[in-house]
Amino acid sequence: MKNDIDRYMHAAGLDALLVRGAATHNAPMTYFTGIRHISSAFLIKKRDQEPFIYCHNMEREEAAATGFATYSMDQFSYSELMKLADGDENRVVALRLARIFEKHDVSGRLAIYGKLPSEAVWGSYTALTEEYPQVEIVAETPLDNVLGQARKTKDAAEVERIRAIGKTTLAVVADVAGFLTSHQARDGVLVDRDGEPVLIGELKKKIDLWLAMRGAENPQGVIFAAGRDAGIPHSAGQDDQPIPIGQPIVFDIFPCESGGGYFYDFTRTWCLGYAPDKVEQIYDDVLAVYDQISSTLKADTLCRDYQIETCKLFEAKGHPTVLSDENITAGYVHSLAHGLGLDVHEAPWFHYNESNQSRLSSGSVITVEPGLYYPDQGLGVRIEDTVWIKPDGKPEVLVDFPKDLVLKVPGV
Amino acid sequence: MKNDIDRYMHAAGLDALLVRGAATHNAPMTYFTGIRHISSAFLIKKRDQEPFIYCHNMEREEAAATGFATYSMDQFSYSELMKLADGDENRVVALRLARIFEKHDVSGRLAIYGKLPSEAVWGSYTALTEEYPQVEIVAETPLDNVLGQARKTKDAAEVERIRAIGKTTLAVVADVAGFLTSHQARDGVLVDRDGEPVLIGELKKKIDLWLAMRGAENPQGVIFAAGRDAGIPHSAGQDDQPIPIGQPIVFDIFPCESGGGYFYDFTRTWCLGYAPDKVEQIYDDVLAVYDQISSTLKADTLCRDYQIETCKLFEAKGHPTVLSDENITAGYVHSLAHGLGLDVHEAPWFHYNESNQSRLSSGSVITVEPGLYYPDQGLGVRIEDTVWIKPDGKPEVLVDFPKDLVLKVPGV
Repeated sequence: MKNDIDRYMHAAGLDALLVRGAATHNAPMTYFTGIRHISSAFLIKKRDQEPFIYCHNMEREEAAATGFATYSMDQFSYSELMKLADGDENRVVALRLARIFEKHDVSGRLAIYGKLPSEAVWGSYTALTEEYPQVEIVAETPLDNVLGQARKTKDAAEVERIRAIGKTTLAVVADVAGFLTSHQARDGVLVDRDGEPVLIGELKKKIDLWLAMRGAENPQGVIFAAGRDAGIPHSAGQDDQPIPIGQPIVFDIFPCESGGGYFYDFTRTWCLGYAPDKVEQIYDDVLAVYDQISSTLKADTLCRDYQIETCKLFEAKGHPTVLSDENITAGYVHSLAHGLGLDVHEAPWFHYNESNQSRLSSGSVITVEPGLYYPDQGLGVRIEDTVWIKPDGKPEVLVDFPKDLVLKVPGV
Repeated sequence: MKNDIDRYMHAAGLDALLVRGAATHNAPMTYFTGIRHISSAFLIKKRDQEPFIYCHNMEREEAAATGFATYSMDQFSYSELMKLADGDENRVVALRLARIFEKHDVSGRLAIYGKLPSEAVWGSYTALTEEYPQVEIVAETPLDNVLGQARKTKDAAEVERIRAIGKTTLAVVADVAGFLTSHQARDGVLVDRDGEPVLIGELKKKIDLWLAMRGAENPQGVIFAAGRDAGIPHSAGQDDQPIPIGQPIVFDIFPCESGGGYFYDFTRTWCLGYAPDKVEQIYDDVLAVYDQISSTLKADTLCRDYQIETCKLFEAKGHPTVLSDENITAGYVHSLAHGLGLDVHEAPWFHYNESNQSRLSSGSVITVEPGLYYPDQGLGVRIEDTVWIKPDGKPEVLVDFPKDLVLKVPGV
């Protein structure tokens, strides 16, 4: 949690953090500032001290609204810096940072955050290393870094924000189910009142609209993948295809608060009208593993053990898994879960690899999403909920939703 | 344009480009791939050769749909790489890249692109420098790099996509004008049928909805800033404030195609009911400069000259500008324009600084957005359109919209 940052900084031997970029759709920045109309800022936090912000004059009021001390980036003349930097914008950034670090006495081991263009990161920090050797830029990993460690456990306010976007998400899932079940089946596909097939692309547009109506944003789209496409976990589905009857449809939806805030992540697999025996059998296997694994989740455990256990459960049912061959494309082909928060995928991680030391803790918010994929048989099944590990160490699905495989439609 | 990339690579002495990250909301990737459900990929282009893509098995079909040769990232065992890397995820990325570069004979000067977490960029490329010294990572600047040079001029298809999102944008602007003018004024603010003030935050939610209804996305929100807030160019406006009568409202809207595609950028300044003399006078000054500068835009000119000319025009009318003091917060305080495309702000740039060698060319798509800001007088005015420099070198506003300052509302 946020109030653990100093502790993690001590443990990692970090002297300061620097977050760069916008305060929208930039998780490490919004973690501190909230969602704000700031297009570019430096947020600096020295260990055991409050963060402060440097931004341009134009955005000073938005920055001041964060409550942190705010300084003008424009006090260092851009023209002069440009001259000094010989027209190299990366060096201008480095020179600005050097002046700020000097002024605020920042030195030692510095961690860097913020979603930025690669060339801006590489260019400015190689220049900073030359301009201001008093700081050493630490090469933290994206999978496990000090800010990520803090973000890995959520406080009560964060959990309630995730639950709220979850309620919005599931209201839209209910809209989608209502839409599907209010249409007729004809010739193996869903049709509208004029008898024309409803296309996946049309439904996706409606989903975007229904999310916006409820105040959510959908920056990464939804997965609505039927039949063979359902058998490829990240296939988004084909917009120009009709919605089939009696085939599994993987519907995975992961919107966020408007402006780039907290995410929710949710999947159901549906068959419209009826489910073929083979699909039902695979569905039952996935649901059984979902239930078994869910019942074992608790705080103070190693995340990778859940992935290993999931693989073993699936293998006992005769399915190939990544545990025996990490390169498979049929069977159980992905991870059980991931953390989520201001990013849809964040720590803790669930890869079975020994090097993965991620732990489940009170305050973790994770997905639970076992699935089975047989593209050559035209099928895939995934069931996913978002789960909070409560202060008592036990799991709670943040927002409940039925797990029926078959949605009845008229005409079948 | 895209077909100039090889020429720019030759000129910059680049042997290869590497783009990393998602194919949504990641301009350099979507420039090549289009908007796709790919969460993580390497796109590599050697000079004078077609790009190819490495992605995970789960996303192979989405990647293959790009038409580029596609390879599996998973052919290099993650577990083995993790062992070799001693659990360091950044080094795993570097080792993967080293194997790919070896296989495809990539060496020499490499430019890196893609919006990624800073720690991932820094960590993986410092590791790559050690693991594969056959490539030298070039520190290009975010303001002027090879891919940016290509993106700086748009082909006909790109222009039509920008025009289409422009039509969507202006349809929503018309919705907003219709909404405002169909409400009553009472006690200096806009009220609904129940006599309750309409709040800026309510209107912003409607704008998000109207954009979604028309298939657009609004990742960075809108600016709807009234009175003193209008006097601070990047103030987004205050959600809990009513919409005032007889005060300038800066309404700046910059949505993109759903999934993170092309942007449009547009601003009008409105006074509801009536405009005070002072506002009208400032508005006339801004409009006169808009018209004068617009009439001079043409291909094969230096962008900074337009900024210098804009400053001179404003100074002749008695307004302070950044040309005489770059740190001012009243008067003309920003740049005239910026390029736009897959990013809302991209090359060419219009800073007056000598080091800015950006040129306006046939195929440029830019904003034109002069403005004046006097926060202490409770006012700000900006007028902005998106303009294409046509093949004949002349400018065309991509989508026209009236420039009336006053919107009539009942009750004034």
